Amino acid sequence: MRTHRIAVIPGDGIGPEVVREGVKVLEAAAVRAGMFRLEFDWLPWNCSYYRRHGRMMPADGIEQLRTYDGIYLGAVGDPSVPDHVSVWQLILPIRKAFQQYVNLRPAKLLAGLESPLRHKEARDLDFVIVRENTEGEYSDIGGRLHPGTPVEMAVQTSVFTRYGIERVARYALSLARRRRGHVAVATKSNGLAHTMPYWDEVIRSCRVEFPDVDVSFYHVDALSTLFVLRPETLDVVLATNLFGDILSDLGAAVVGGLGVAPAGNINPEKRFPSMFEPVHGSAPDIAGKGIANPIAAIWSGAMMLEHLGHPEPAAEVVRAIEQVLAEGRVWTRDLGGTASTEEVGDAVVRAL
Amino acid sequence: MRTHRIAVIPGDGIGPEVVREGVKVLEAAAVRAGMFRLEFDWLPWNCSYYRRHGRMMPADGIEQLRTYDGIYLGAVGDPSVPDHVSVWQLILPIRKAFQQYVNLRPAKLLAGLESPLRHKEARDLDFVIVRENTEGEYSDIGGRLHPGTPVEMAVQTSVFTRYGIERVARYALSLARRRRGHVAVATKSNGLAHTMPYWDEVIRSCRVEFPDVDVSFYHVDALSTLFVLRPETLDVVLATNLFGDILSDLGAAVVGGLGVAPAGNINPEKRFPSMFEPVHGSAPDIAGKGIANPIAAIWSGAMMLEHLGHPEPAAEVVRAIEQVLAEGRVWTRDLGGTASTEEVGDAVVRAL
Ligand SMILES: CC(C)[C@H](C(=O)O)[C@@H](O)C(=O)O
Ligand SMILES: CC(C)[C@H](C(=O)O)[C@@H](O)C(=O)O
Repeated sequence: MRTHRIAVIPGDGIGPEVVREGVKVLEAAAVRAGMFRLEFDWLPWNCSYYRRHGRMMPADGIEQLRTYDGIYLGAVGDPSVPDHVSVWQLILPIRKAFQQYVNLRPAKLLAGLESPLRHKEARDLDFVIVRENTEGEYSDIGGRLHPGTPVEMAVQTSVFTRYGIERVARYALSLARRRRGHVAVATKSNGLAHTMPYWDEVIRSCRVEFPDVDVSFYHVDALSTLFVLRPETLDVVLATNLFGDILSDLGAAVVGGLGVAPAGNINPEKRFPSMFEPVHGSAPDIAGKGIANPIAAIWSGAMMLEHLGHPEPAAEVVRAIEQVLAEGRVWTRDLGGTASTEEVGDAVVRAL
Repeated sequence: MRTHRIAVIPGDGIGPEVVREGVKVLEAAAVRAGMFRLEFDWLPWNCSYYRRHGRMMPADGIEQLRTYDGIYLGAVGDPSVPDHVSVWQLILPIRKAFQQYVNLRPAKLLAGLESPLRHKEARDLDFVIVRENTEGEYSDIGGRLHPGTPVEMAVQTSVFTRYGIERVARYALSLARRRRGHVAVATKSNGLAHTMPYWDEVIRSCRVEFPDVDVSFYHVDALSTLFVLRPETLDVVLATNLFGDILSDLGAAVVGGLGVAPAGNINPEKRFPSMFEPVHGSAPDIAGKGIANPIAAIWSGAMMLEHLGHPEPAAEVVRAIEQVLAEGRVWTRDLGGTASTEEVGDAVVRAL
């Protein structure tokens, strides 16, 4: 029986609370499937680690992670550490070092949940965001000029490579082929006149390999209105790092909120470990209260099972989540219920 | 009696159709008010001008515009000209040359309209976006490297100056003082670790001058979910050029769509003419059919009247729009009706 070694990084705030439920569900799913074993190593890399060591993870953190089959992350960020420090020393280096160039974020209205959109139902809300995850606007190139003077300024340079665009575009195009055959590309070629026309051009050059996939380009401002007004027209949304970040939160909002939005940071070639984490952050305001919704984390865990080669157990976890949601009794506060984080985790295990 | 000279740039697509109704309403409002005269000069600067002259406006276009009291624009863009050419030669140079550093975009659910958000009504949807309009991500600094090779790339540099941030921040903070006293700042200081922490820092340094205004910082991804899930918490939203572009379309979507979303590109010191234009684009797909909604253009015209020092006539135009919408008989197709562009303009004139 194959054993998958998973690095668990619970992180900060509600991260540890939701990850605990995720691990519980994944263990139950593995036992039930009886085809593989999961071994979890818990790594205490977070903002309190930073306060003690002056860094978010050990100097050889990336080397340690490299030996695992998967990384399961809660959330990172605490008011005591500037956000750009915590994420640029933990999440972002992991995404970049392991060439997790696809950030895959399904936006699907689960059975039992109501969309905040008045006229939309489950059949209107089933799309997926493919976010470029290693370059683009999230560059570390920039700085300040003339500090302390009236002409002080800060600059930052976005970098888009043919290499980086092609690989994520091909992923999105082949994903669309296995779905409803449509890719909506987020661009802003009118305003950002150097990088975005290039992004469009490289994607156009890839699409010829996928003549059966229908590709439309939308300026990101107009596309964001489609998320609200006509989400039923969306299938696969292909976006840059920054636009994908914004659009995936918006996608989460229209299908019930961040409490139920999962994500995978994927290296499709499986040369390096992929990382699975809810779209939500560490939510310091509700941390420690045991009321955070663990569904996003549990679903992210199911995406990890699928990536590890176990689509059936993954689908069963999602079915169990849907059953719990549809029964409507064990809902956390964000969904209008009163259940605790742990009660939701237990209910999903029972539904399995 | 004072005469205001207005440069009208109808532009492309539905631009001329909606601007015609706007001018009609503004003329009626001026006659009714009897306190000022409006003189309109029509400038044929658009994509067909480009096809004839190889440029979107004459070489001295900015100099010509400088002599006007206001600029009234329809929309620019046609499939025959790359978007980044048309806007970088017309709208964007006007915004920058005339230091129209505030792009003011109200998101308000008008009487008679229903929000696409299930549980939200008019009292939940009344906020305004203050978008920085002259710098930031919309820079012309960038280019390509190694074209034609596998390591080809495109780069683009965002520039944020203390000067540029302070002036728009002060505008937003004083606007909040005249509204409900709250500013939500869109940032992304965790991901864009050079420019966005600087943006936050300069805004923090301005807020001390406005101790009575409450300021919250949100990452733009999280903020976009508030637009859908808790818009009632928003009053003034302060955003960079790019984030303001996205958020204002999203704001338009939650209050009934781009057909009813106005904008002003404002030079608050009135040293230079300001420009008023609907948020929507040229919509080539419905151009020439006479079915575009002119409300956004008419309302933008009302914002121009207010800027020219006529708040009462401006408010009357908005009241007339609301009356027409509330009656529900003369609605264009985007709102679910069958009225033509012209019929809506006529109805607003009658309601005046
Ligand atoms: C046409 C385009 C460059 C413009 C912008 O991005 O500013 C438009 O979307 C707008 O919002 O006015
Ligand atoms: C924490 C932050 C840097 C991150 C991002 O912007 O990528 C988060 O918002 C996400 O979407 O995973």
